[in-house]
Amino acid sequence: MASIFTRIVQGEIPSFKVAENNTFVAFLDVFPLVRGHVLVIPKKETDRFFDVEDAILQDWLVFAKPIAKAIEKAFPCQRVGISVIGLEVPHAHMHLVPLQTADDLNFTREKMKLTEEELLSDQKLILTHLVHLD
Amino acid sequence: MASIFTRIVQGEIPSFKVAENNTFVAFLDVFPLVRGHVLVIPKKETDRFFDVEDAILQDWLVFAKPIAKAIEKAFPCQRVGISVIGLEVPHAHMHLVPLQTADDLNFTREKMKLTEEELLSDQKLILTHLVHLD
Repeated sequence: MASIFTRIVQGEIPSFKVAENNTFVAFLDVFPLVRGHVLVIPKKETDRFFDVEDAILQDWLVFAKPIAKAIEKAFPCQRVGISVIGLEVPHAHMHLVPLQTADDLNFTREKMKLTEEELLSDQKLILTHLVHLD
Repeated sequence: MASIFTRIVQGEIPSFKVAENNTFVAFLDVFPLVRGHVLVIPKKETDRFFDVEDAILQDWLVFAKPIAKAIEKAFPCQRVGISVIGLEVPHAHMHLVPLQTADDLNFTREKMKLTEEELLSDQKLILTHLVHLD
């Protein structure tokens, strides 16, 4: 069965996309740790991160870079951090999270519940700062 | 002033290396979250992760992949996770951590203090599972 992320890629489940190319898509985590929390996934479904083929691993951080810089402008922070855990959705994914402290990347914390208006606003704010992506 | 990681790269500070090529070096975090916690850094010092040049970002995950697979064999776990936070050492670095739960990537937890014997044993265990790099 297709993962929830594959269903997002295929448009069966709506998402708040901020970037996309032939290989990757980036969209808001709808249960974010903090505002501005984005997921970056390869469109091709692979369960485990380090089983992803090298050609995709090679492009992943370069694809994420301008998104991270846009998040940083949209949500002022100390750094944009990365987390890969992968214990919940069996489709390799990377979290980009604007950090004030290390606790902002602590996935044992309770997630936020945002309204659709808040998610649309966060999406728009990131898109405003993303000038080019392929 | 050179970062503590540059001093490790230059051999001024000892480390428990598990892999190295012209661009990167990987060594044990001496204050690990769990046994098998490894740092992967580019030899070239750059403070912020997403300021690292694309040519280095491109190779980072591919360099990390066999290390992650060796960690997974050496320290049986659900997954090897990744974390990039960067609030402490101004030299971009990536944590590879064998996870049983998301709490194993929670950097607000108290770190472990291992003896030199334990670190040497962990280094050897990872090296045993790393057949080739490059």
